[in-house]
Amino acid sequence: MTDPADTPRVLTVRPTAQEYAWTFGGAAPVARIAPGTVLDVHTEDCFGGRVRTADDLVSRVCEFPYVNPQTGPFHVEGAEPGDTLAVHFVSVEPRRDWAASTTVPLFGALTATHATAALHPPLPEAVWIWELDRERRLCRFTARDSDHTLTLPMEPMHGTVGVAPANLEARSALVPDAHGGNMDTPEMRAGVTCYLGVNVEGALFSLGDGHARQGEGETCGVAVETAMHTVVIVELLKGVATPWPRIESDTHLISTGSARPLEDAFRISQLDLVQWLARDFGLSELDAYQFVTQAVESPLANVCDSNYTCVAKLRKKWLPPAEVHGGLHAELRRRAAALR
Amino acid sequence: MTDPADTPRVLTVRPTAQEYAWTFGGAAPVARIAPGTVLDVHTEDCFGGRVRTADDLVSRVCEFPYVNPQTGPFHVEGAEPGDTLAVHFVSVEPRRDWAASTTVPLFGALTATHATAALHPPLPEAVWIWELDRERRLCRFTARDSDHTLTLPMEPMHGTVGVAPANLEARSALVPDAHGGNMDTPEMRAGVTCYLGVNVEGALFSLGDGHARQGEGETCGVAVETAMHTVVIVELLKGVATPWPRIESDTHLISTGSARPLEDAFRISQLDLVQWLARDFGLSELDAYQFVTQAVESPLANVCDSNYTCVAKLRKKWLPPAEVHGGLHAELRRRAAALR
Amino acid sequence: MTDPADTPRVLTVRPTAQEYAWTFGGAAPVARIAPGTVLDVHTEDCFGGRVRTADDLVSRVCEFPYVNPQTGPFHVEGAEPGDTLAVHFVSVEPRRDWAASTTVPLFGALTATHATAALHPPLPEAVWIWELDRERRLCRFTARDSDHTLTLPMEPMHGTVGVAPANLEARSALVPDAHGGNMDTPEMRAGVTCYLGVNVEGALFSLGDGHARQGEGETCGVAVETAMHTVVIVELLKGVATPWPRIESDTHLISTGSARPLEDAFRISQLDLVQWLARDFGLSELDAYQFVTQAVESPLANVCDSNYTCVAKLRKKWLPPAEVHGGLHAELRRRAAALR
Amino acid sequence: MTDPADTPRVLTVRPTAQEYAWTFGGAAPVARIAPGTVLDVHTEDCFGGRVRTADDLVSRVCEFPYVNPQTGPFHVEGAEPGDTLAVHFVSVEPRRDWAASTTVPLFGALTATHATAALHPPLPEAVWIWELDRERRLCRFTARDSDHTLTLPMEPMHGTVGVAPANLEARSALVPDAHGGNMDTPEMRAGVTCYLGVNVEGALFSLGDGHARQGEGETCGVAVETAMHTVVIVELLKGVATPWPRIESDTHLISTGSARPLEDAFRISQLDLVQWLARDFGLSELDAYQFVTQAVESPLANVCDSNYTCVAKLRKKWLPPAEVHGGLHAELRRRAAALR
Repeated sequence: MTDPADTPRVLTVRPTAQEYAWTFGGAAPVARIAPGTVLDVHTEDCFGGRVRTADDLVSRVCEFPYVNPQTGPFHVEGAEPGDTLAVHFVSVEPRRDWAASTTVPLFGALTATHATAALHPPLPEAVWIWELDRERRLCRFTARDSDHTLTLPMEPMHGTVGVAPANLEARSALVPDAHGGNMDTPEMRAGVTCYLGVNVEGALFSLGDGHARQGEGETCGVAVETAMHTVVIVELLKGVATPWPRIESDTHLISTGSARPLEDAFRISQLDLVQWLARDFGLSELDAYQFVTQAVESPLANVCDSNYTCVAKLRKKWLPPAEVHGGLHAELRRRAAALR
Repeated sequence: MTDPADTPRVLTVRPTAQEYAWTFGGAAPVARIAPGTVLDVHTEDCFGGRVRTADDLVSRVCEFPYVNPQTGPFHVEGAEPGDTLAVHFVSVEPRRDWAASTTVPLFGALTATHATAALHPPLPEAVWIWELDRERRLCRFTARDSDHTLTLPMEPMHGTVGVAPANLEARSALVPDAHGGNMDTPEMRAGVTCYLGVNVEGALFSLGDGHARQGEGETCGVAVETAMHTVVIVELLKGVATPWPRIESDTHLISTGSARPLEDAFRISQLDLVQWLARDFGLSELDAYQFVTQAVESPLANVCDSNYTCVAKLRKKWLPPAEVHGGLHAELRRRAAALR
Repeated sequence: MTDPADTPRVLTVRPTAQEYAWTFGGAAPVARIAPGTVLDVHTEDCFGGRVRTADDLVSRVCEFPYVNPQTGPFHVEGAEPGDTLAVHFVSVEPRRDWAASTTVPLFGALTATHATAALHPPLPEAVWIWELDRERRLCRFTARDSDHTLTLPMEPMHGTVGVAPANLEARSALVPDAHGGNMDTPEMRAGVTCYLGVNVEGALFSLGDGHARQGEGETCGVAVETAMHTVVIVELLKGVATPWPRIESDTHLISTGSARPLEDAFRISQLDLVQWLARDFGLSELDAYQFVTQAVESPLANVCDSNYTCVAKLRKKWLPPAEVHGGLHAELRRRAAALR
Repeated sequence: MTDPADTPRVLTVRPTAQEYAWTFGGAAPVARIAPGTVLDVHTEDCFGGRVRTADDLVSRVCEFPYVNPQTGPFHVEGAEPGDTLAVHFVSVEPRRDWAASTTVPLFGALTATHATAALHPPLPEAVWIWELDRERRLCRFTARDSDHTLTLPMEPMHGTVGVAPANLEARSALVPDAHGGNMDTPEMRAGVTCYLGVNVEGALFSLGDGHARQGEGETCGVAVETAMHTVVIVELLKGVATPWPRIESDTHLISTGSARPLEDAFRISQLDLVQWLARDFGLSELDAYQFVTQAVESPLANVCDSNYTCVAKLRKKWLPPAEVHGGLHAELRRRAAALR
């Protein structure tokens, strides 16, 4: 870990249209960074910024597989398989005063898809342009088929955060799996630290897919998609393995699992949380199983992507006194505060 | 609907050990009640009160299928298929200062089961007796394999609430499905109104399976199980169909779905919420699909029972101004307040 | 077991429209029979004979839940929970020279359903009347949208065979589960013996849902449905448990499993086959697991019903020399031959 | 297509241990071949030949991710996205007189896995060495825990056959998906033609994972694994898309689908077969849906890999007279015969 007394190195990244990655793994790093580096980055929305009006149907303006652009990847010096990257989200702020959501043919939870294959023709393709009131932190929805205008709180987050996968693979940025990727959980917001197991030398971290907000499950498959200005601190934990992405907030420990069917994603995330309690909080696995059963919050993340993602959350104040990774999250919170 | 100005009829039910039902459908009604009746009932815990110490292993003290006893069923006068029962929970209070949780061989989410069949021997069978501090509203956990004692808020709820199923069926009280039953959602607590579609004449409502609290997903298969003193008001909505159980709280509309795999439970609950918005709030189905996608909360209920249960919640204050069922929930809140 | 030297008792059953059962469990027995009885029965098709022309859409002519009529139930004297019923199919012969198949709104594998819920409108509803050439054992298909006429072998079978379920339940005749029911496997044909675990006193056996033939998986949800004249011998194995329905043919041992998701049905059927080999053929479970892995045939039965059904088949000639249930299947074959 | 009158080019490939590929996509081609080329190749078993005795536990002798070595990839000249590769299997012959099968910790259908996560410790790890009698075409099994020796027919096949995937991905050779890969279907045997949609320039075809035989579903996760000497003819169909791998034999049309849960793999394979009939045999989709429902065979391929694989087979003699791809399969059969 870097000495927190040091002035942090800051890397500012403003990618051009040609500089995004479309996969985790298989893309050349855009920069090498030392552990402790502050990344001040721009991300583009999942459409590559091409959906701007109600007429910009995805099937017309987007060109597969060039969707869900990622800023990165960043080679983290010294990162090796078996280590863990700790990515602290200092800030996640929309760069536009609008965002887009859409239906996409044969994609989403309440439709036939390429996997849940059926004889139905696709549902109608549509675009909703949401207005973002960044000052008042609001997202404004305008209905297409009635006069309703509705307002939701803005709660910016990143749908896609990850490292290169194991097993020599390169995965589309649309896929969530053990390497992170397109998990689409609203938990990935400013103020949290995300722990990602390193699978390849340099880790090859990237992020993208900003959402001004998102419901749990991302039912239609597309959130309130927008470009982001995001600041993260990237730390490295040597010799610490993290099999599935974990998140720590000021209040919660959060495990994730991504798989199909959805109960397997649930099983992965809950078992990970049980094993986290056993590793760091002195409970036996069976006691942790019992305690998690009564204490866990289990909001869905996505039920639309190539793998579905479940989240298992536990309130830290309910746990025995103990620190995760030597108090790293609190330390990163302090470093983040010092950046302002 | 009954005239709220009337003094409500109150039926007090204190079942003996022989008077519980073990199924939804197929059990003779214990009483006939008029719509508007206040039921003041006792329920027994899912073990029939037989698990009292750490030595009372379920496989030793319980006799299948006589588990998860239900108080009822109640024949609601005038209820016919195509109607909806509105059950308002006035209060749900533990009747004991302790509760029990256990593992059960081949039952739960992180174990081989009779359906997710495997060659593993069952996990160890164990009992945890929780202390309930009803005054301070706390549940105290004592670990078996370490010295930890942990405390969680008491949040009493009913795991099992339902009516007789359709299709001439009788279902075990362990099963959740379109008739309600063993949904095991923490949303079923004091202050909410549960809407249940009526499938047979008289509806045949029952309830049981009180939990002093429960995590989302009920991971090990067993919550903090205890006997309850519960008061509900039972109302009848004639000519209103409710395909899957819905819940209304002061703050949220809540749809449920129970199925396997878990993504089907998700699909059912989310589609139901979309169609609820379309029916009562003037949005088209496609606009509702988009709005739900960004606004919904999707906490899991159970991922351990014969069917898994998902919940889809929407904050009422975010919706267009409209009343569900003519404001029945608010009216029932008023009647409940008048009972105290 | 009955003395095979006795002249078998034969019970002839020709139900009227009012005499069918619509559930397993919950229906009064139509007759009491002694073990060894030959049942000579008529069954009606799953539509209750109401779909007779291309205009007889299911949604128009059928009245739910009165679909899939079952002949029975038969109370088998002496049958108790923990015993096994052995039902030998002597003959299964269509009673008509035509059969019907249809699509049914929101039912089938390649469509949105009530469980795999989606926003699509239902697929078109249609009827196909198949011609049965009983002499040449052929089924003739006439396409609706082109001039094609195609011919398939007639391979009569029963989609629905079962006993009353455990756990005090009554299940719709549309449901397959551990009690048998609507398994829809082409293996249930003349010449086989079906083993069913007894859950209630008298077992309460019934059968129906004749198919002139069916593909594996019953993709659209409806086979070539027709009325049958069927003869079975019903035997009783005292003190022998059978957790999931098994079938024995002259050539194969066949285990079944019914569950969702489909991999759970697979797991149940394969584990049952492994345990069958361990019980009767002297292999350890681990050796049986290995041998089954290399030798099993795994044709799907149905992927459309409330539970999906998988079949696991093993060629008897590949197994160590041993007899199942003391050679009962061969004995029943002899008795069946003597009936002709 | 190449002129069949030409003397075919033959490429003989005998890879060294360093020359295998471990992924589909992401590996450099080992050779460029013209359409029509005959590939005469050796493949190594899934263990890279390291499991040779009962003591060679996979966890001890194999080094992940270097398992399931593939011979290739081969760059097919002229192949572009939107084309189809036709790979005809001339012969598939074991190169050894023994084969190995094993259990692998947390892998297989009847065990907790990394995805179907549970608290159970792994099942026992074991190795079975099978004897291959290549002259009599038999596989001999020796039980570990009893004296049984059992014999099964040798039916050689390739578990893994595929091209580089779409979406810029590289997938582990353990994964089956739309690009083919580790489908593990016994249908992939000598005499069939496999159609694979091309996703990248040159297609990048490879194959491996020979099985002396395999049951349907590959229950324990590992077949009778052996090294193969295999001859294929690789043809190219320009401008013909094939969304999921298809196989044509002398008797059957065979569609495949690979996904989780297993019902999605079923849906994909059955819909593909319906659409194949609609494309090539003049049936409407609805008529094809009906006909497939009654005629299809649906044997499982694998229910253990990262995706599960289903197969949907239809007997060609039952179909309207028509040729697939202008009779290519028959032509390749002729060319194969000429090679002997």
